[in-house]
Amino acid sequence: MVLSGIWRKNENSKEPLPENISVSHDKAVPPQAVQELCASVGWSRREPELIVRALQNSLAVVSIWVKGTDFKPDELIGFARATGDKVFNATVWDMVVRPDYQRAGIGRLVMCELLKELDEYQIPLVTLYADPGTDGFYKRFGFLADPSGVRGMFRERIDY
Amino acid sequence: MVLSGIWRKNENSKEPLPENISVSHDKAVPPQAVQELCASVGWSRREPELIVRALQNSLAVVSIWVKGTDFKPDELIGFARATGDKVFNATVWDMVVRPDYQRAGIGRLVMCELLKELDEYQIPLVTLYADPGTDGFYKRFGFLADPSGVRGMFRERIDY
Repeated sequence: MVLSGIWRKNENSKEPLPENISVSHDKAVPPQAVQELCASVGWSRREPELIVRALQNSLAVVSIWVKGTDFKPDELIGFARATGDKVFNATVWDMVVRPDYQRAGIGRLVMCELLKELDEYQIPLVTLYADPGTDGFYKRFGFLADPSGVRGMFRERIDY
Repeated sequence: MVLSGIWRKNENSKEPLPENISVSHDKAVPPQAVQELCASVGWSRREPELIVRALQNSLAVVSIWVKGTDFKPDELIGFARATGDKVFNATVWDMVVRPDYQRAGIGRLVMCELLKELDEYQIPLVTLYADPGTDGFYKRFGFLADPSGVRGMFRERIDY
């Protein structure tokens, strides 16, 4: 429970993060770190060079790090990104928290930082596709499920 | 029913378009034409300079035109665009057909052209948010509603 204090703070709190936790908005997240984080929650593997290009073409990227030691490198524990047109809409993708660090406020920190960046562009509509059981989490940030009967639809091509 | 032949053609048909109909993949669609088309279906007004920026930041833009005459300029009758990271995902927005031209194959033409462009990037996942009653249309292109219980969620800021 590294971030129990953060978990309870409200979105506009100035409470500082623990010294060993840092937030980055840099799109150049090392792809191996992203790969490894996604693998930790069972997501399928993506090629490092594709990860680099996708992050570069994203509108906003947030990564949360735990500072390493002399014997251990910094560790990526939370991540999310958004695509969009920088004007009318943005869509959140790949929101993920390392299992060891779940239920400790990291997901909330990721979303607050991502939405803060999108709000700087004054994007009026932010959307996402919520996995089953996760909509309660997103409701806290003002997201509504299927308003006015609008439904998310998906077309997957598995041959690429 | 200008495109009744097109309406029935399959996605890979080489049947030519009527001479007075043209398809453009240029992002520089005149914003006033987009504004006017959106107004024709009752969508709220967007500023021309914001439209220009949003189209420029889109991954793909498709517009369908009817050739004008000496007395009438070319008319924009169909439109859609997609945002995305050019690698893993794309999201379709603002799919619209002028009311006079609905049920004549224009929507199908727009979607075929947009998906063709996205498929050139080999993007494995294309998503969209379907208004009530429109999911049957999108199913024809391989879109599924809420697969595995995934739900579309929206956060709107009306103060921008």
